[in-house]
Amino acid sequence: MIVVMAPHATQEQIRDVERRIQEWGYGAHPIYGAERTVIGAVGVPEADKARYMESLEALPYVERVIAILRPYKFASREFHPDGTVVDVRGVPVGGREVVLMAGPCTVETYEQTYASAKACRAAGASILRGGAYKPSTSPYSFQGLGVEGLRILRDIADCFQMRVITEVMDVRNVDLVAQYADILQIGTRNMQNYDLLREVGRSRTPVLIKRGMWARIEEWLQAAEYVLLGGNPNVILCERGIRTFETYTRNTLDLSAVPAVKELSHLPVIVDPSQGTGKRSLVTAMARAAVAAGADGLLVEVHPHPEEALKDGAQSLTCSQFEQLVAEIRPIVAAVGRTLHAPDAG
Amino acid sequence: MIVVMAPHATQEQIRDVERRIQEWGYGAHPIYGAERTVIGAVGVPEADKARYMESLEALPYVERVIAILRPYKFASREFHPDGTVVDVRGVPVGGREVVLMAGPCTVETYEQTYASAKACRAAGASILRGGAYKPSTSPYSFQGLGVEGLRILRDIADCFQMRVITEVMDVRNVDLVAQYADILQIGTRNMQNYDLLREVGRSRTPVLIKRGMWARIEEWLQAAEYVLLGGNPNVILCERGIRTFETYTRNTLDLSAVPAVKELSHLPVIVDPSQGTGKRSLVTAMARAAVAAGADGLLVEVHPHPEEALKDGAQSLTCSQFEQLVAEIRPIVAAVGRTLHAPDAG
Amino acid sequence: MIVVMAPHATQEQIRDVERRIQEWGYGAHPIYGAERTVIGAVGVPEADKARYMESLEALPYVERVIAILRPYKFASREFHPDGTVVDVRGVPVGGREVVLMAGPCTVETYEQTYASAKACRAAGASILRGGAYKPSTSPYSFQGLGVEGLRILRDIADCFQMRVITEVMDVRNVDLVAQYADILQIGTRNMQNYDLLREVGRSRTPVLIKRGMWARIEEWLQAAEYVLLGGNPNVILCERGIRTFETYTRNTLDLSAVPAVKELSHLPVIVDPSQGTGKRSLVTAMARAAVAAGADGLLVEVHPHPEEALKDGAQSLTCSQFEQLVAEIRPIVAAVGRTLHAPDAG
Amino acid sequence: MIVVMAPHATQEQIRDVERRIQEWGYGAHPIYGAERTVIGAVGVPEADKARYMESLEALPYVERVIAILRPYKFASREFHPDGTVVDVRGVPVGGREVVLMAGPCTVETYEQTYASAKACRAAGASILRGGAYKPSTSPYSFQGLGVEGLRILRDIADCFQMRVITEVMDVRNVDLVAQYADILQIGTRNMQNYDLLREVGRSRTPVLIKRGMWARIEEWLQAAEYVLLGGNPNVILCERGIRTFETYTRNTLDLSAVPAVKELSHLPVIVDPSQGTGKRSLVTAMARAAVAAGADGLLVEVHPHPEEALKDGAQSLTCSQFEQLVAEIRPIVAAVGRTLHAPDAG
Repeated sequence: MIVVMAPHATQEQIRDVERRIQEWGYGAHPIYGAERTVIGAVGVPEADKARYMESLEALPYVERVIAILRPYKFASREFHPDGTVVDVRGVPVGGREVVLMAGPCTVETYEQTYASAKACRAAGASILRGGAYKPSTSPYSFQGLGVEGLRILRDIADCFQMRVITEVMDVRNVDLVAQYADILQIGTRNMQNYDLLREVGRSRTPVLIKRGMWARIEEWLQAAEYVLLGGNPNVILCERGIRTFETYTRNTLDLSAVPAVKELSHLPVIVDPSQGTGKRSLVTAMARAAVAAGADGLLVEVHPHPEEALKDGAQSLTCSQFEQLVAEIRPIVAAVGRTLHAPDAG
Repeated sequence: MIVVMAPHATQEQIRDVERRIQEWGYGAHPIYGAERTVIGAVGVPEADKARYMESLEALPYVERVIAILRPYKFASREFHPDGTVVDVRGVPVGGREVVLMAGPCTVETYEQTYASAKACRAAGASILRGGAYKPSTSPYSFQGLGVEGLRILRDIADCFQMRVITEVMDVRNVDLVAQYADILQIGTRNMQNYDLLREVGRSRTPVLIKRGMWARIEEWLQAAEYVLLGGNPNVILCERGIRTFETYTRNTLDLSAVPAVKELSHLPVIVDPSQGTGKRSLVTAMARAAVAAGADGLLVEVHPHPEEALKDGAQSLTCSQFEQLVAEIRPIVAAVGRTLHAPDAG
Repeated sequence: MIVVMAPHATQEQIRDVERRIQEWGYGAHPIYGAERTVIGAVGVPEADKARYMESLEALPYVERVIAILRPYKFASREFHPDGTVVDVRGVPVGGREVVLMAGPCTVETYEQTYASAKACRAAGASILRGGAYKPSTSPYSFQGLGVEGLRILRDIADCFQMRVITEVMDVRNVDLVAQYADILQIGTRNMQNYDLLREVGRSRTPVLIKRGMWARIEEWLQAAEYVLLGGNPNVILCERGIRTFETYTRNTLDLSAVPAVKELSHLPVIVDPSQGTGKRSLVTAMARAAVAAGADGLLVEVHPHPEEALKDGAQSLTCSQFEQLVAEIRPIVAAVGRTLHAPDAG
Repeated sequence: MIVVMAPHATQEQIRDVERRIQEWGYGAHPIYGAERTVIGAVGVPEADKARYMESLEALPYVERVIAILRPYKFASREFHPDGTVVDVRGVPVGGREVVLMAGPCTVETYEQTYASAKACRAAGASILRGGAYKPSTSPYSFQGLGVEGLRILRDIADCFQMRVITEVMDVRNVDLVAQYADILQIGTRNMQNYDLLREVGRSRTPVLIKRGMWARIEEWLQAAEYVLLGGNPNVILCERGIRTFETYTRNTLDLSAVPAVKELSHLPVIVDPSQGTGKRSLVTAMARAAVAAGADGLLVEVHPHPEEALKDGAQSLTCSQFEQLVAEIRPIVAAVGRTLHAPDAG
């Protein structure tokens, strides 16, 4: 790290910072400029850096402290140069194949989920999505069927040889959800719910971490670091849009996060164009763009009758629209030199 | 709510929307314009509105649905025209008095907390703040002393006749934290952790909800609605800065949220200028501004030796700086016709 | 438009709003709800709407006024259902072909521009970009060669049968720049420089309007409306990233703006992945994604020796990287059923 | 500046960067860490820094380049430790006195401007604001009376011994507007209109630069640097809100910019709570807060009949509301140890 001293820092103050760095056991290398002195601290391990930076920044004669290394280690590509492929009970996420995860926003009934799953599977989805526990801005919105929803998901996914991804919101439910799900989804609002991250870090079930709508890429990778550090190496990232001043779309889907994550990290990254735009009419175009940008998969909301959906109908595709989406991404997948993962034969 | 039909919606489609609204039991009032038809839906109760809006928005011949009423009820000033005063074991928050909450960012040791509390109490703070469970972006940062921190806080607060505010992050800890704390703080990252909001809604201990760094005022009030709906009427709001493109400050403290909350809601609102700016040099000016804007209190980080703090030293005031802050806000408090709450005599 | 009355508006106040609407010559249709009265105003022409909305919003017994129609007319797809193809001296922008615009950020020397143009033309670019007048955040940065830069651009473009796009910043230079350029570029910082928009509206030279880094899509289309209303129908839009809290990229490239513009407007829309990311390593992936999202073209910075560039070297591709970019987008162009525009034979 | 080398940069590449720095005539000081080498460059003058930073960042073996010094000089407090007081024909802005600038958003008629000016002057405003040239997002909104508006402003200001502040948008009008105005206002949309900044830099008339709604504080100070560098030392800054995701307010008024500017720069800074909130009901609270935060003045929109205003009526105070605002800020002014500037006796 680099310590920038305040404009009129005295020799004594510079010496004080050097001494602190050395007392912690690291090298201190001052560079004297005309208007500022900066001090490079060499050898500070990741585990101590945040603390030491904060400590130096608190000194009145320090202007700021600049981190040189990224604030995560296990999530970084430097640590693990090859890309990680997460094995979701036989479905590889992060390899040469592009994987489709699709299904209803929320599990409402057996019939609705069945109809959605059937169509998604037929169109090429390997993984069934669906919310049993739903985070809702309004306390008056539908909050999900809970464990009954988990059972429906598992049952129907098994019918179609699909895997299950579903959100876990409550630390107390991690084991329960892991009994039914093949991927534990951490929703955007919980990206910095550290107790939850620690809890899924104790599991071996793959974890998909949606980007917090307020989160810088660096913070998202730090969230992944919590899970990796907990001992669970099966982390998938999911870009789902960030919050900006634009109001035409519900979020601003930041597709540059896809190649950015690929250069910073070894973890797979997929894209949710449904949440990312909030508008059915934009989903397919953004699905194409996501694959072209290098996404390892897509997470798409599909409802047999969007106008009857209890949540997010406006961004759900109909079954035939999803079929059309797959038809449109197929040549894009080929254009980037990949193949679409084919669901297991039934 | 107002349903705006798509540009070329047919008579039949307009009738379909009217019929849906009527089938739900509400009045449908179409207005035919030259380029758009809009339909007003009258009588839709809050508890059903979110669902019906989503359902109509999912129709392909509906352009959008506009809510006319605010999406919260118990948090609204219309529901409760007089301002709410939350009683924190005898300290009234939201009344004529401005209340000071201060203390270290994090409880590190008994001595550090004692020194901070002593100085804060002497300067005029009635409520002792301090983190026992700390949310940290980095898994390598200090995560707090846990229950040991709670005990230290309670013990020292009692020495000085102060109340205790501390953050609860984990649903499993709500009862535990409530044994030690007089206010349960919901941190910015957990503003939309609905399980946690429901859990503190079951308590009778006052709850302080920090604004999510990504949250619109409306969403913040919906978070309060979760707690109120759960049965806990003792909700305090705390503006602590939102995330913007500005990088000089850690967050952008949105002081206009103070008068905005006052017109939209009956709940007390306080301001955290420490988190809100992330820079010690700006804290006092923003504390003055917060009180001038109408805040019911302040939440300030004070550390006897900021450069030794394990977290957030750069934004912590020293004890003498806090004393100076109180000296500077005292005439502002008077200028807005209020008084500073005096801590209990010891 | 829809006028939402304040909660406790009296019958008299409701009547007052109705009367105002009727006096302006429009229809007023009140809908009485339990908690709010709303009044639909029918027949208000675009040219008067902004004014009337502001006037009603200023009344103390009006809560807010909601526009139903989009605040632009000539830029809307409803006005002009077919997509517009802008003819750039024989190069069609907005049709079935995807058009490449490439060249150096800034014209520095004849040699540098020549080398860049030659390579861009060889790789498939039809339009040469290059700044003669450069907007720079710092007054100490290079500000461009001015008219000498324009001459270099024109001369070299003619050598290679290319068209020229270059930025005009100063209203006094519009005619001068139009003598040399085939497309007048309005930079992001000038998207709401209305005098400049009016001035290029008087020209017949095609105008490319970059999205303001702070601009909602609606405001961007209103900027186009200024030019169209001025009489110049040859408007191209260019998404170049918006400003968000993310700092890893220089801007957040909002690719959802591409399909959004396509549904709201008939104007062509291209994408600038160089400005949009600010990082060379991300440009090609975002170029692929832009084409997949439906962009009508790309605007790319290419420098023979980026490390010698006077501006924006970090986001400029080398000549061989640009060649690679074209190789990578070619199959994407085909995948979306389009073809790459081939430069004129020399 | 600090050059951070890419992770696996070779000795030769490190030497190459050192050589480049030395060839430019500066000192190069490498620090070798375990995972990164950084090189401090010492002695680089402000005028060359932007260029050299960009040049090094373009090298593929450089990860990033970090500026240590602020990218402005004449605007910095280090350059000019004492605060600047701008003399507006006898009215001092930036000294011990707080100055009120008020008047209509737009000059519509002589009568409306007269009524507003009279009331503002009576309440304590020394400087009359009013737009003759209005930037409007919609081309269908009122665009101002132009030179006729300037004449009205001047005439009425002279009646009341007031000074005039009005916006100049077009480089061609700078001399014209300076004939009538005592302060040339650069609007938020033109904060990075560099031709305009250069043009007002040639004037000696005081210039007020509104913060761009997308601008970081650093960029705002760089805009001031353009004017100062042009030779005009009479620069006043005006915070008027930035664009964020919040939609309840029109902008998010960033009051922390007030103490931030005070520590970074010697220039006076005032606040516009009308544009900053867009809501009449919030203006007075934010005016109080602005003064408490240390603002040197306020810029407030006042209209005798807001509901008849051609622009921005919803954020304009009535004359009696402005009188009330002044009554409420008076004790705040005193509380921060300042006095309200008294208008000249008539």
